[in-house]
Amino acid sequence: MTDQQIRTVIIGASGYTGGDFIRLAHTHPHIKITGLVANTHAGSRADEVFPHLRFADVPKMVKADEVKWEDVDAAICGLPHGTAQDIISTLPKHVKIIDMSADFRLRDVETYKQWYGRSHDHVDLYTEVAYGLTEHNRDAIKAARIIACPGCYPTAVLLGLLPLVSAGVINTDHLILDAKSGVSGAGRSPKQNTLFCEAGEGLSPYAIGSHRHTPEIEQELNKAANLRDIEVSFIPHLVPMSRGELITGHLTLTDGKTIEEARAALEAAYENEPFVHVTEEGVIPGTQHVRGSNHCLIGIFPARKAGRIVLIAAIDNLVKGSAGQALQNFNLAFGLEETTGLTQLPLFP
Amino acid sequence: MTDQQIRTVIIGASGYTGGDFIRLAHTHPHIKITGLVANTHAGSRADEVFPHLRFADVPKMVKADEVKWEDVDAAICGLPHGTAQDIISTLPKHVKIIDMSADFRLRDVETYKQWYGRSHDHVDLYTEVAYGLTEHNRDAIKAARIIACPGCYPTAVLLGLLPLVSAGVINTDHLILDAKSGVSGAGRSPKQNTLFCEAGEGLSPYAIGSHRHTPEIEQELNKAANLRDIEVSFIPHLVPMSRGELITGHLTLTDGKTIEEARAALEAAYENEPFVHVTEEGVIPGTQHVRGSNHCLIGIFPARKAGRIVLIAAIDNLVKGSAGQALQNFNLAFGLEETTGLTQLPLFP
Amino acid sequence: MTDQQIRTVIIGASGYTGGDFIRLAHTHPHIKITGLVANTHAGSRADEVFPHLRFADVPKMVKADEVKWEDVDAAICGLPHGTAQDIISTLPKHVKIIDMSADFRLRDVETYKQWYGRSHDHVDLYTEVAYGLTEHNRDAIKAARIIACPGCYPTAVLLGLLPLVSAGVINTDHLILDAKSGVSGAGRSPKQNTLFCEAGEGLSPYAIGSHRHTPEIEQELNKAANLRDIEVSFIPHLVPMSRGELITGHLTLTDGKTIEEARAALEAAYENEPFVHVTEEGVIPGTQHVRGSNHCLIGIFPARKAGRIVLIAAIDNLVKGSAGQALQNFNLAFGLEETTGLTQLPLFP
Amino acid sequence: MTDQQIRTVIIGASGYTGGDFIRLAHTHPHIKITGLVANTHAGSRADEVFPHLRFADVPKMVKADEVKWEDVDAAICGLPHGTAQDIISTLPKHVKIIDMSADFRLRDVETYKQWYGRSHDHVDLYTEVAYGLTEHNRDAIKAARIIACPGCYPTAVLLGLLPLVSAGVINTDHLILDAKSGVSGAGRSPKQNTLFCEAGEGLSPYAIGSHRHTPEIEQELNKAANLRDIEVSFIPHLVPMSRGELITGHLTLTDGKTIEEARAALEAAYENEPFVHVTEEGVIPGTQHVRGSNHCLIGIFPARKAGRIVLIAAIDNLVKGSAGQALQNFNLAFGLEETTGLTQLPLFP
Repeated sequence: MTDQQIRTVIIGASGYTGGDFIRLAHTHPHIKITGLVANTHAGSRADEVFPHLRFADVPKMVKADEVKWEDVDAAICGLPHGTAQDIISTLPKHVKIIDMSADFRLRDVETYKQWYGRSHDHVDLYTEVAYGLTEHNRDAIKAARIIACPGCYPTAVLLGLLPLVSAGVINTDHLILDAKSGVSGAGRSPKQNTLFCEAGEGLSPYAIGSHRHTPEIEQELNKAANLRDIEVSFIPHLVPMSRGELITGHLTLTDGKTIEEARAALEAAYENEPFVHVTEEGVIPGTQHVRGSNHCLIGIFPARKAGRIVLIAAIDNLVKGSAGQALQNFNLAFGLEETTGLTQLPLFP
Repeated sequence: MTDQQIRTVIIGASGYTGGDFIRLAHTHPHIKITGLVANTHAGSRADEVFPHLRFADVPKMVKADEVKWEDVDAAICGLPHGTAQDIISTLPKHVKIIDMSADFRLRDVETYKQWYGRSHDHVDLYTEVAYGLTEHNRDAIKAARIIACPGCYPTAVLLGLLPLVSAGVINTDHLILDAKSGVSGAGRSPKQNTLFCEAGEGLSPYAIGSHRHTPEIEQELNKAANLRDIEVSFIPHLVPMSRGELITGHLTLTDGKTIEEARAALEAAYENEPFVHVTEEGVIPGTQHVRGSNHCLIGIFPARKAGRIVLIAAIDNLVKGSAGQALQNFNLAFGLEETTGLTQLPLFP
Repeated sequence: MTDQQIRTVIIGASGYTGGDFIRLAHTHPHIKITGLVANTHAGSRADEVFPHLRFADVPKMVKADEVKWEDVDAAICGLPHGTAQDIISTLPKHVKIIDMSADFRLRDVETYKQWYGRSHDHVDLYTEVAYGLTEHNRDAIKAARIIACPGCYPTAVLLGLLPLVSAGVINTDHLILDAKSGVSGAGRSPKQNTLFCEAGEGLSPYAIGSHRHTPEIEQELNKAANLRDIEVSFIPHLVPMSRGELITGHLTLTDGKTIEEARAALEAAYENEPFVHVTEEGVIPGTQHVRGSNHCLIGIFPARKAGRIVLIAAIDNLVKGSAGQALQNFNLAFGLEETTGLTQLPLFP
Repeated sequence: MTDQQIRTVIIGASGYTGGDFIRLAHTHPHIKITGLVANTHAGSRADEVFPHLRFADVPKMVKADEVKWEDVDAAICGLPHGTAQDIISTLPKHVKIIDMSADFRLRDVETYKQWYGRSHDHVDLYTEVAYGLTEHNRDAIKAARIIACPGCYPTAVLLGLLPLVSAGVINTDHLILDAKSGVSGAGRSPKQNTLFCEAGEGLSPYAIGSHRHTPEIEQELNKAANLRDIEVSFIPHLVPMSRGELITGHLTLTDGKTIEEARAALEAAYENEPFVHVTEEGVIPGTQHVRGSNHCLIGIFPARKAGRIVLIAAIDNLVKGSAGQALQNFNLAFGLEETTGLTQLPLFP
């Protein structure tokens, strides 16, 4: 497969996740970007939309209906939820779809409707969908036509929690997830609360108890625990940085279980993983240490009180939390080495 | 008392808390700063140490032994812990001491030794000490000679938790406190982790389960609950902003209690307070909304899971978390209107 | 005048300059804010628009036509240019107007039209207008009904240059002004280029050779030099900070003049000024040292090449560059001590 | 040469430029890092010094005298000036040296002594040295044993000015260079002025007329212009961002020359260059658009006044301004494709 060029179209190329996929694809030897779809910027050169793409050899932005889909192998979808399902449903069946939106993450359409405020009109496609948390769903991802990449928060949360829940070392009744994200998670559309002067030099909790990533986290935890009623406390905060996401999991050990068993479960899960790393005892992850990379750092620590532990998971929300994981899934889907295009080190400082 | 000029010396005037006390004192009609003590900067003009003090009429920095203490009414101490107790013990008895350090906060000297790594050599002074959490300890503060102002984190935590614990509405077995602070909390001494390039564009948990403010929080909660064994999970994070501190309390209601009762307890505690404010239902505090001011915003919200609530408390760590609360205590100690010098609005943006 | 309450309405109260005037007015003993005009937010409480105004006792936002102007003494106008002239022209003659917009700054209506893209429809009002650069125009400001406060950049530039130009120590043929501003200068309306992720961690020149503050600077310099043809090179840059403005003036001495004469001219101009300060030799101003205050720091330095000097002027763009200077002019207009409400020290860090 | 592994040691591996060279080398197919020298961190793993290097396969830090230099092909030196010359003089002659320090940049040892405050003790090595401004000195760089990489500021300044000076289109008597840098340029040693709280939310000019990069800029301009007396006004500013450097050149055209000729000179110089790009008319470079990459953006614009032009040059100070240019020179020195390891796109946002 060394000479293969996979003809790839990015839908929603003017958003941050679309832009970051282009960045990563730029050093990928088997991706040929043949289309950039951005309806409101159709006709623009990529560097007019994202000046840093001046150095990439990519086509102009076009509208979705200008793409000749018969010549396309893969579509990367970075559209907002709600919009994505409609366009994805129109794509021909030979196109592999890596969807970074939320539209195919929730298996239950009622839950989708409740949290996303519109009906899901393409339930029929679900037979072709896999949930794209790479490290925990490789077989399904390889087999699927549509890969529903997890949300940024669910990615960090689930990478940390799934091995613990699967091993039964933590009490699923006490899952308290204090989440922090950089501002890029809010997207590139101008809004007052993401202005430099509003988000800078300040810290803002938001969507307390009501963030849309909550049911997604619960769906996957329930699946791993073979339960139906897990409810998490998920409280996100907006942090004055562009990139980065950190989950502080305040967890309770199952009676009789120890932090050593928790650590062992994490280490076993990720010992051969190229992108997920459990830090040594006492080494605390920070988001700046994964910035721009597809890596996830997980640390586990005793809390003061007996029976309580603290889980820290750090990712770059735009990379492992979105475009990087999408590329990892892309590689998997096309039979490529999973790390292709993803080997660059974090940018620090 | 309108013409009174209280002769005030600031010890540790070259640190951020000392500097911020000078800022606040500048508009206070009854404070005359007669001494600025900063041993390593003795001989310097204040504006050589802090250029923004060029606009204040303050004396040069001196060494502690250059101060004529007989002409001093009040000492504000912004020294690091360990150093503070030694100098405070030497001050003449007529001097009121507002101590922003940690040295007289913990009543138990064994606990002090365990967490601060040195012995407490001035236990005899404890009879003259009051813990300076203004809103909850006014009588003792008025009567004391030495006011031990709370740490920045304990201030925000306790303002939020004390009314809930006192009212018995929350379960003291499940006190999970996810704390976030701006970088000024780490002080002005150059350290690698507080460099712009290290602390900027990143988020770092630190001192997981081992922060020195933990026993202080527990001491006061135990006192309020009339218990001895409360242990809190207190996990601090360094946030890329200069000022601001936010506590996200993940709390569990006592069986049979409701969030309405929790809200009522908070509102009752603070309804007449000038600096502590409970936000309306759904209004989420952010640190940028109190920046530079002595105000504390407290919000309370239902978590997703029945029986769980989320408490948010936001302060400026240098003001309500240190110099502002010190000035509030100063006013109380000297029989002044408690808000004197503290009425300025937050600086936003 | 000590008991006077000046009934003041802020027009454009939902913008950053309007908001900062409210902050400053809050500690002013003679201002009673009786109206906040913000058309798109009419009906909202101030703290719904600016959460930090929760601690201020101000009325709800209203539309301009809801104000009873007969009960108003002063109007502070923080509207965008173009909009301001229309509303100002409708106000009754007994109302003093402190206009922070650009609409009455340029005396030449053709120049206004050329740079601001619309006609000036209220030229008749110009007889009542004074240019509000306080330190250089006190008599006119006192006498005027409408005070046209300078733009933020012109304020810093002119405070630095006017004494030098008036004294004839610099060559007006070589006025190179490299200007840098924090993001708040771009206003509070959501725009892509002022998002945290776009303006953060980066530096962007803009409006090279075409910024609207250019003719304003030239107008005042020509007046001071008794010339008509001064043209400045004015190049602004957007800096990743919320507040602050710094001018680096690359200047050439008039033949035979010295940097000592330049320094003397500046020192003479400002020796008794409460808000403009010439730094000592070698002391370099920074914007963080004036943040939140009405102070301006001016430094003057030899450049490497003989005959060249460097002028540095630093202000807070929202205070001395807008709302603070407006309040200073307000004080002047109402016969109050000029520093009233403006004595607070900078907020550092 | 496709299988060649060049055994490379990084001296000064604990500094930002050393660390960034490691990042870039990580994706370079022909670099094998066989040694990391960092005297004060000898014995530490790389990720203990730089947590983001956890994902790189690099050896532990050692002292310089622990390296077996006979097994080394190339040394990258990221030491502070003064220290570099001493260690470089001891390296065996078969080792190619890419020096990112200032020690071999100035050809005149008296100038070195005057600006760097110590004597140059290894003048004899100068016959083996080339100045490493890649685009303008390729032949010498290929032939040299020691490549003295330019300072970050000189890189950006000279890339912009050399074509203009060589073509005679600008007046070398009026070279005004207003420079702005991110904080990483000040290095990783803790200093008060580079703390987050001091450098954040503020803008600080520094070293006015006295920055050490001045003689380096003048040396190269004089050489290009075949002159001896060029003096530049070079005024640097510290900007609250980690990475990025921007030069605003306020230039004067030579009599009779036009901005079109200036643009043509720049375009001719860089039309085939992979890393230096002249922007289209009206397109203004910003540092965020080159962040993390080896690219330099140059824009040229008319100033308001006839005969004046504005040159903007933007780079990442740690990449094109240091480690990236070092790698570009490394590639050149070892006969590799010059872009090897340097093709990644900027990280935006």
